[in-house]
Amino acid sequence: MNSLKSIAWSEGRLRLLDQRLLPHEVVFIDYVDHNDVAVGIREMVVRGAPAIGAAGAYGLVLAAAASTAGTAHDLQADLDHAAAVLRAARPTAVNLTWAIERVITRAAQAAASGHQAMRAAVLAEAQAIQDEDVRVNRQIGLNAMPLVPDSARILHHCNTGSLATCDYGTALGIIRTAHEQGKRVQVYVDETRPRLQGARLTTWELQQLQIPHTLIVDGAAAHIMRTQGVELCVVGCDRVAANGDTANKIGTYHLALAAAAHGVPFYVAAPTSTIDLSLSTGDNIEIEERPAEEVTHIDGRPIPPEGIMAANPAFDVTPASYITAIITEAGIAYPPYIDSLAKLVGLARTPAASKAR
Amino acid sequence: MNSLKSIAWSEGRLRLLDQRLLPHEVVFIDYVDHNDVAVGIREMVVRGAPAIGAAGAYGLVLAAAASTAGTAHDLQADLDHAAAVLRAARPTAVNLTWAIERVITRAAQAAASGHQAMRAAVLAEAQAIQDEDVRVNRQIGLNAMPLVPDSARILHHCNTGSLATCDYGTALGIIRTAHEQGKRVQVYVDETRPRLQGARLTTWELQQLQIPHTLIVDGAAAHIMRTQGVELCVVGCDRVAANGDTANKIGTYHLALAAAAHGVPFYVAAPTSTIDLSLSTGDNIEIEERPAEEVTHIDGRPIPPEGIMAANPAFDVTPASYITAIITEAGIAYPPYIDSLAKLVGLARTPAASKAR
Repeated sequence: MNSLKSIAWSEGRLRLLDQRLLPHEVVFIDYVDHNDVAVGIREMVVRGAPAIGAAGAYGLVLAAAASTAGTAHDLQADLDHAAAVLRAARPTAVNLTWAIERVITRAAQAAASGHQAMRAAVLAEAQAIQDEDVRVNRQIGLNAMPLVPDSARILHHCNTGSLATCDYGTALGIIRTAHEQGKRVQVYVDETRPRLQGARLTTWELQQLQIPHTLIVDGAAAHIMRTQGVELCVVGCDRVAANGDTANKIGTYHLALAAAAHGVPFYVAAPTSTIDLSLSTGDNIEIEERPAEEVTHIDGRPIPPEGIMAANPAFDVTPASYITAIITEAGIAYPPYIDSLAKLVGLARTPAASKAR
Repeated sequence: MNSLKSIAWSEGRLRLLDQRLLPHEVVFIDYVDHNDVAVGIREMVVRGAPAIGAAGAYGLVLAAAASTAGTAHDLQADLDHAAAVLRAARPTAVNLTWAIERVITRAAQAAASGHQAMRAAVLAEAQAIQDEDVRVNRQIGLNAMPLVPDSARILHHCNTGSLATCDYGTALGIIRTAHEQGKRVQVYVDETRPRLQGARLTTWELQQLQIPHTLIVDGAAAHIMRTQGVELCVVGCDRVAANGDTANKIGTYHLALAAAAHGVPFYVAAPTSTIDLSLSTGDNIEIEERPAEEVTHIDGRPIPPEGIMAANPAFDVTPASYITAIITEAGIAYPPYIDSLAKLVGLARTPAASKAR
């Protein structure tokens, strides 16, 4: 597809595609300071759980490079500080925390070899996270194929494609794999208010991939299911609890209810890095409340009169009971998720499974 | 509340408040030609089922005034022609057809007295429709009071207030009545994509009425029900079939599914003029497909890349099984609606019931 990567590392700089301006302007921002990366993540220059994980990891690479520490101990302290800044940028997607912890752990393992070895290790781990993400996405796409019939009409929420990841995509990766395999899929694209990631980003990716699609307002999904028919819904996720409860972009739960009412299978595409076994249920997932202006203003212009209150929960939690299956790179989890997710996460973290993907 | 009426008749002109520009600009458009009124209805200068009914009726007054017919027979022909133009402006809301038929019938009854008497009758009927609408709305509000508890958090879709009617409002009229009676209601306002009637119009009305409210994106409704709690949903309608299936603004059905999943009562505010006993079920209701640009453009600016397909069904049908009750000016209908609606429509059309309201 397009050569526009959401995230690229080159010559000591992290380059992010500014997704706030797509599809009308293609602008890259180069980062050399991890504090700026944290701002970029918060302001959604980069978004999508896997992509912000990788961006956070490269943020630590920048912190390591900028650090004047002359000892492993001092560098570890600088990295810990940077990690706290980056981790705080967005609370809901676990991938950010997960990627940062991976890099910090790798740095600590290299500490015995000195601060220069730590710097090299930090970079190597960030690159590994980026590379693995692409492989993981492709494997999720392949694993999902038994669930996607030919000529499927697929309802998709938010953006989960190349832009939301390091490349290829999770839920959109499934759609893409089906298309590449010759299944004649057709996508109903939820525009995904308030930030319109479906309208701005998913349509743009699908257009380039030449996958047939129709944009709809989020409120039309149930009507489309009732009158046109939809074979499956597939969404990404920002954090999956041990019991399968799934946090994802606001509107996902609303969509899952419509799917349940119509007997439409509802699938979540989840790299195992998004599964948080430390949380027993979705009730423990922190839901980010974003600025009201994202609801009250579009492209900087106000919609309601001045002085209006708006709520802007950026995510919602879909209870596991509404999720037909969770598709990971290590296989497909079915209910009861408390068992199936733990098993797949275990598989993904063994070397054999790594090789398999 | 505000003295800005959606519809006013004065000195041979129909004055419509241009709702496309609210809340940022208050502009009135004066009409002297029924063809222009039809365009105004189609382009949503005026919207809301009761309001377009009244606008259509006054369109016939303009047609009668413009007609050069010198006989009752010729005037009837001119009115029939104008009625066809006006009726075609928007297909889903039955109120337009209902109001036009009322005026045409009244004209025919006056035909024996000559064409000037017909002209007077046409004006009198349009004014009666306008006046009755306000009384009907107030009665709907009063009738609903047993269903609205104190301190109710109410979820509302689209705009059903003063602007959508000749004054006061239907679903918003219920909220308004509860507020006037000292019930401490709080409203979650669905923004209602694509045309954002909730964000633009409902917030504006609630602000002036000083009724506490919070604007949300449509996709957040289920999340709000799950996490904050909502005591009831109340919506308007564009056409109710004999079995209770209800056509209303796109997103209504999606909202009804969320309400059902959370055990939240789902109420439809319906003047009996919106009940179409000639249709056995909602499957027979024509759903208007509006221009794709309403989805792809906001305030004239494109959201997705060029060349994207979008579907824009303006309404959806909520099956009667998801509707807890239908509140009319003649009383509250409960399932099975096939009996209760017929009874209330009968009541509303007898002189005794007219007097009662």
